[in-house]
Amino acid sequence: MKRTTRWQHTCLSLLLGGLLAGQSVADQQPLDARASDPNVMGWMQGFPPAADKQINARNYLLFPQTRWSFSHIRQLLPTATVGRGTGAVSPLPDARRDDIDAVQFKLADGSQMSWEQSLAANYTDGIVVLHRGQVVYERYFGALQADRPHMAFSVTKSFIGTLAAMLVEEGVLDEQAPVSHYVPELKDSGFGDATVRQVMDMTTAIRYSETYSDPSAEIWEYSRAGNLIPRPADYDGATSLYGFLQKVQPEGQHGEVFAYKTVNSDVLAWIVQRATGSSFANLLQQRIWSKLGAEQDAYIVVDQIGTQFAGGGLNASLRDMARFGETLRNNGRFNGQQIIPQAVVADIRRGGDQSKFAPAGYATLPGWSYRNMWWVSNNDHGVFAARGIHGQTIYVDPKAEMVIARFASNPVAANGANDPISLPAYNALAQHLMRQP
Amino acid sequence: MKRTTRWQHTCLSLLLGGLLAGQSVADQQPLDARASDPNVMGWMQGFPPAADKQINARNYLLFPQTRWSFSHIRQLLPTATVGRGTGAVSPLPDARRDDIDAVQFKLADGSQMSWEQSLAANYTDGIVVLHRGQVVYERYFGALQADRPHMAFSVTKSFIGTLAAMLVEEGVLDEQAPVSHYVPELKDSGFGDATVRQVMDMTTAIRYSETYSDPSAEIWEYSRAGNLIPRPADYDGATSLYGFLQKVQPEGQHGEVFAYKTVNSDVLAWIVQRATGSSFANLLQQRIWSKLGAEQDAYIVVDQIGTQFAGGGLNASLRDMARFGETLRNNGRFNGQQIIPQAVVADIRRGGDQSKFAPAGYATLPGWSYRNMWWVSNNDHGVFAARGIHGQTIYVDPKAEMVIARFASNPVAANGANDPISLPAYNALAQHLMRQP
Repeated sequence: MKRTTRWQHTCLSLLLGGLLAGQSVADQQPLDARASDPNVMGWMQGFPPAADKQINARNYLLFPQTRWSFSHIRQLLPTATVGRGTGAVSPLPDARRDDIDAVQFKLADGSQMSWEQSLAANYTDGIVVLHRGQVVYERYFGALQADRPHMAFSVTKSFIGTLAAMLVEEGVLDEQAPVSHYVPELKDSGFGDATVRQVMDMTTAIRYSETYSDPSAEIWEYSRAGNLIPRPADYDGATSLYGFLQKVQPEGQHGEVFAYKTVNSDVLAWIVQRATGSSFANLLQQRIWSKLGAEQDAYIVVDQIGTQFAGGGLNASLRDMARFGETLRNNGRFNGQQIIPQAVVADIRRGGDQSKFAPAGYATLPGWSYRNMWWVSNNDHGVFAARGIHGQTIYVDPKAEMVIARFASNPVAANGANDPISLPAYNALAQHLMRQP
Repeated sequence: MKRTTRWQHTCLSLLLGGLLAGQSVADQQPLDARASDPNVMGWMQGFPPAADKQINARNYLLFPQTRWSFSHIRQLLPTATVGRGTGAVSPLPDARRDDIDAVQFKLADGSQMSWEQSLAANYTDGIVVLHRGQVVYERYFGALQADRPHMAFSVTKSFIGTLAAMLVEEGVLDEQAPVSHYVPELKDSGFGDATVRQVMDMTTAIRYSETYSDPSAEIWEYSRAGNLIPRPADYDGATSLYGFLQKVQPEGQHGEVFAYKTVNSDVLAWIVQRATGSSFANLLQQRIWSKLGAEQDAYIVVDQIGTQFAGGGLNASLRDMARFGETLRNNGRFNGQQIIPQAVVADIRRGGDQSKFAPAGYATLPGWSYRNMWWVSNNDHGVFAARGIHGQTIYVDPKAEMVIARFASNPVAANGANDPISLPAYNALAQHLMRQP
């Protein structure tokens, strides 16, 4: 159980690749960051691209295609806009410095690595570091550019979690009400008698596996229901995200342990949308994106009946992700206004119940917890983060006054694979910035 | 022949509806503008929308679904961004006036109609009128909003035509070169020995029908090739726009007559993209959109190998369309810079060969011609226009110092159905603005 949970995100792309191509993937050795650079590989170059260089809705989740596709999701899937509005772009003062690439840190095996080396090791597509609100580091690799939204995967969850927490704070949502109070269609599902708070903190008890190595895991039907991966000709499963959610079965007692299951985020979005009458994208646009002074519109993947994929469908520019992280670091205030109530940010930063988080067995996250769909370290820096498979993150270190936004296309989905390099790297950079501000 | 050509755009949605639903459409009487208002009809309201209120990639081209879908194309199809950049929005001074709704004009049968009545009669989704660069009129109906891009259909052609004319002016493109010089893949198609100029002015002689009432017309396979409409299970036609273009057969002598065929625009885009190494969307972004001070990113529909549909896939906000029209009215200058060379605008405004246009038999466009994928009236106001099915237009009247941008979802595709109301209405408004500036 622990083992399964711990590795539940293992290797989405490789395994998906295997499933899509009908081949064994156990022995595949992925190309490194340089060899898999999408410009080097020539994906989607020319008019038209050569047949073996085309990326489409059927192969876009295969590695190394992902190194291109994560920066071009709207060209592959239908999407809805999260508009920036017509206001001025908020300044992100440029204070780039050349001492960061050489920052050294130690891996668990005692070996040394530099910050610069860590970027390639984790297949970084782009990274922005803010220190005290100024850009001290900014790099793009491969297909990503400053003005190009990248798939944020489960970083999306932290946006719906923040919006839900704002609605709880305002009294629009009752966190103790059962899910079925807001979404009667879920009454007979495993979610029906869970509370909104249990959904927000992923302590619901449902039968739903994200073990990508198991072809019968529910994540596969969920992905097909959402049109994220192609459906076989004989497919008779759910044909929308909501259709799937209604079929999820109970398993155990709600509220006992944290169990990371993407479906909770889409249930939360369903609740939020029902309670407000506004779509996730519209809420995000009105309450956050248009206030950030974002540089770019963001967008979100939709299923075939228009449901926005709150579990992992947001795409945004890296600099705008950094703006959102900076807003959290500043207790909700950014661009001259209080965008998120201070109490909501405080609630996120306090974290969830560590005793409920520990049994999930995340080896790289000892002492962490999960609250309002944010990952909270509970460490002496007060680090908290939004995290998405393949290396997406918004990482906030309040003590070091540092925010990191990173997009990546690591062939291994699980952040458990990035963390052994990324977390020490982030911590080393924090220490460095504190020593030499 | 004349008859066929004249009515070649008859009733796309109704007929498409019939084809998709397998029913006869001859006797369908479409709902009027008020009854078909997408908010009244309740399309895509709620989470999820009721089953009979859902719009998806299979039914979005049916009327009255079109009244919603033309403002939500990106939620239905994959698309590529045409970015506005991060510059300031260019001002469109607000000088709205209340005397326009009452402007009267005469229809061909002698009856009177008011400007306001004309909007509903043509299923207007939105309209902006600039006079001397100021907004004197702006209205939105149904699903369209100021910040929401709408499908521009063949207005797209005028953008690729303008870009191509700019490249000819710069010497990057040789308008006398054969198509096969730039795109060897088209050598054996009907386009191979046509010149670039013949493509730009649609005087190529090819076997390609856009007679929507004929299920065997090439427009159907072209639409399926581009993934704009669903493919039947036994489909064995082209699977990309470029795949289709290579199959187009010759018919007659190039250069003799104007024949409006969408495929020319995609051939032109292919030429332009090959000659520059840049995609249509990127060229449009770099050379025009980012310079306009546009309010919104625009976007363009792509096929399953990423080809941007230059024949009709652009979506943009109405106010940005008006900015582009104003740029043309000002001989290429807008937002403090010369965006399009004066010579290019002059070449558009001079129009094409009227004797080659006349045989096409457009009853509503006597004396007009076609140049650089613009429709040119050659009248005493020097009117010229971009035009797309279902009522999309950018209409420039230099003498009246007036620009009209209009989006619509008329159930009848052919602009021949809008023109008997729209053209007298536009002319009456021009006279009104000249009398009472």
